[in-house]
Amino acid sequence: STENGTRSVVNNLSSEIPLNLDHGDPRMFESYWKKVGDRCKFTIEGHESLSYFANPKNLCWFLEPKLEEEIKKLHKMVGNVKVEEEEDQFIIVGNGSSQLIQAAFYALSPLDDSNPINVVSAAPYYSCYPEMADLLKSGLYKWGGDAHSFNDKEEPFIEMVTSPNNPSGVIREPVVNGGGAKGKVIYDLAYYWPQYTPITAKLDHDLMLFTVSKCTGHAGSRIGWAIVKDKEVAKRMIKFMEISTIGVAKESQLRAAKLLGVISDSCSNVWSPNFESFFEYGHLVLKERWEKLREVVKKNPLLSLQKYPLQYCHFFGDFSESHPAFAWMNCKNGSKDLEKILRGNKILVRSGRRFGTDPNYVRISMVCKEEEFNLFLQRLSTIKEISD
Amino acid sequence: STENGTRSVVNNLSSEIPLNLDHGDPRMFESYWKKVGDRCKFTIEGHESLSYFANPKNLCWFLEPKLEEEIKKLHKMVGNVKVEEEEDQFIIVGNGSSQLIQAAFYALSPLDDSNPINVVSAAPYYSCYPEMADLLKSGLYKWGGDAHSFNDKEEPFIEMVTSPNNPSGVIREPVVNGGGAKGKVIYDLAYYWPQYTPITAKLDHDLMLFTVSKCTGHAGSRIGWAIVKDKEVAKRMIKFMEISTIGVAKESQLRAAKLLGVISDSCSNVWSPNFESFFEYGHLVLKERWEKLREVVKKNPLLSLQKYPLQYCHFFGDFSESHPAFAWMNCKNGSKDLEKILRGNKILVRSGRRFGTDPNYVRISMVCKEEEFNLFLQRLSTIKEISD
Repeated sequence: STENGTRSVVNNLSSEIPLNLDHGDPRMFESYWKKVGDRCKFTIEGHESLSYFANPKNLCWFLEPKLEEEIKKLHKMVGNVKVEEEEDQFIIVGNGSSQLIQAAFYALSPLDDSNPINVVSAAPYYSCYPEMADLLKSGLYKWGGDAHSFNDKEEPFIEMVTSPNNPSGVIREPVVNGGGAKGKVIYDLAYYWPQYTPITAKLDHDLMLFTVSKCTGHAGSRIGWAIVKDKEVAKRMIKFMEISTIGVAKESQLRAAKLLGVISDSCSNVWSPNFESFFEYGHLVLKERWEKLREVVKKNPLLSLQKYPLQYCHFFGDFSESHPAFAWMNCKNGSKDLEKILRGNKILVRSGRRFGTDPNYVRISMVCKEEEFNLFLQRLSTIKEISD
Repeated sequence: STENGTRSVVNNLSSEIPLNLDHGDPRMFESYWKKVGDRCKFTIEGHESLSYFANPKNLCWFLEPKLEEEIKKLHKMVGNVKVEEEEDQFIIVGNGSSQLIQAAFYALSPLDDSNPINVVSAAPYYSCYPEMADLLKSGLYKWGGDAHSFNDKEEPFIEMVTSPNNPSGVIREPVVNGGGAKGKVIYDLAYYWPQYTPITAKLDHDLMLFTVSKCTGHAGSRIGWAIVKDKEVAKRMIKFMEISTIGVAKESQLRAAKLLGVISDSCSNVWSPNFESFFEYGHLVLKERWEKLREVVKKNPLLSLQKYPLQYCHFFGDFSESHPAFAWMNCKNGSKDLEKILRGNKILVRSGRRFGTDPNYVRISMVCKEEEFNLFLQRLSTIKEISD
C-alpha cells in the first residue's frame, strides 16, 4: 500500500492537482526507515497479545512494559525530560496524544458540580484544541479561548502550553499571569525533539505529553504518551482511557517500542560508525528545507517567516536554530488572505484563523515527502507575479 | 510476554489467589491461534504506514482497504449481516466497539440546542453503557436507564440493543414501545458469531457494531467496526473518530485484516480437510464448557443458569443452543448477594447490580483459559456446603 501511495503522489505531482500541506503528515521520515531496513521490521504471532491486559501490576495496566522501557531510555538518551523513579512519575499510553489531551482535560476538571473549567491556550494555538474541548459540550470543561485574554483568575482553568508551539515553532511558557493554585498546565511537547529544536533543558513539569507521530514519524500508529507526576491525576487519566477505548492497541505499542529502540540504537552508534542517527538525519533534512524555503521567501517582498534564536543544543553539542515541522508564514500586507492566495496556486495550507489569529498567517507542513516539498518551493516561487 | 503470562497464571492457580472472571478476557482462543501457526504471523516494515491516511478516497479515510475487504468477506461467509454495495453501507473502524458506541451517541444526538438525548437499554444491560454515556457530562446525550421503564416517548431517545445480550446471552429486539420516528437504535452485535449463538438471520439494521475482541479473541488489538446505512450518521461518527483519536492504529487494522482472512480461510477448508474451522473450534470448546457448568450447577440447589432455545444455525447447518461468552447465573434465594458469595470462594465475577438488576445475579466469563475454567468449576462445586 505504501508503494501505491508513492505512485499516486508522483502522478498527482505531474498533473496540476493541489498539493496538500494542511496536515503535518510526517512522510519525510520514510526514507530513513527504509535505510534502516530489517532492523525495524516488526513481527507478531497470531496467538500473542489476545488479552486486554498488558501489565496488570502497573497502574496503567494497558501499557506494554517494553514500550515504557523504551520511552524512558529514549528520554534519557535525548535529555529532553527528567526521567524519575517509578512512583514519582507515571507513564500513560494513549491513542495518539489527541486522546491524552482529552484524558488530561477530564483528569484536571473539578470533581464537584461547579461550572465547566476553562481550557485556554495562547494564540496562535493548535487548531484542534477548541474542537477537542467543545466536541461533546461537556459539563466538565470547555474551550475558553486565547490565554492572553483570559482574566477570570478566580475560576480554575487549564492552560495548554505547546512547546515548541504548533503552529509557530517558538518555545513557550504559560502566559496566564501567575497561574497559581487555580491554574493547571498541560505541556504538549510533541515537537520537543532534536530534529525540530535545540534541546536546552531536561523538562520536569507535572503533566507532559509526547507522540510517536512527531518523534519517529509513525503517525499511522496512533501512539502517544503522558508523563504525569500526581498519582490521582494519573488514575483519572487511566480511567478516561478505560472508558473511552479500553486502552491502546498492543500491536502499535510493541511496534512503537521497537522503533524507539531503533532510534536509541541509531544514536549510540551500535551499527556502523557511518550510519547517521535518526535525529541527525531529521535535523539535516529539515535544516536544508528551511534554508531553501527562506531563500524563496527572501525573494518575495510579500512574504515573511517566523525567526528563531540560535541556541545551544545539549543533544547535538552545538549551536543551532529551530527547524520546526511547520512553517508559520505571513503576508506583510496585513489585509491579504494568505490561505486563499496559496490555494489559488494549488498549495493547500491551514489559515491563521484556525489558530485563533489573522488570515494573513498560514501554517505549512515541512515534513512532507521530498518531491512534495520541491513542488511546494516551485509553486511558491511563482506567487509574487500573481499577488504582488 | 504471553509465555510469562501463562506461567504466572499457573502459579496463581496453584496458590489460593482469587480467580478473576470479571472481565470477558477472551484468552480461550489462544490455543486455536497457536495451532494455526505461521499462517497468522503478521509482519510490518519500519517504513510502512507512517501516514495518518489509509485511504483518502474513502469517506472513512483512516480505514485500511484490506480490513474493509476482510470484514465484508467474513460477514458474507458467516451470513450474519447483509453486505451491501459501497454507497448503501459505510464501514467505520474504531478503537474497539467502545469508541464506536460513543461515536454513535455523538452522531445520533440532536444537532440543535435541545436537552441531551436519553440513552436507554433494557436491563440487564451491558455495565459500561451508563459510564460511557455519562463520563463527560455531555450536553448532547446522557444515560436514561432501563429501557423497560423509559416512557417519555415525546422526547427523542437512543436505545442500545445488545444481541446476543451481554450479560444474559439472549437474542434481543428493541423494547421501547413502537420506537417510531423519535427513537434511534444502535445494535451492539459483538457476540453475533457462530461460536456463541446460532446464526438465524442476515441482519440489516441502520447501525450495527462488531468487535474483533469477541470475534477472533484479539481483545488487545482494540479493533471494532460499525456498519452504517445513513451517510450523514456515518460522517458524524467519522468526525468523532477524527477529533477523539485521529483514526485507528494501522498496525492493528492490518493484523486484524490478516486474522479475519485466516478465519475465512479456516471456514473454506483451504488448508487441510481435517483442520477445524475457527468457529467449529470455538463452538465445541464453549459447548463443552457449558455442559460441564450445567452439570455443576444442577447439583447445587442454590444456583440457576439462563436457558436458551434450540435454534437452526444457517452457518453450521444444524440445530444448536446458544453457548454465550458469559454465564448469567442467579441465586434462587433472591435475598443473597451472589457476587459476594463467589468472592468468598475466590471467584471474582460482576454483580447483577452493575447491569441494572438484582445482586442475586452475576455475570461470569466463559472465555477464560482452560486451566482457569477448570479451577472455576472446582471452586464452584464446593460452594453448596458454604451457603446452602
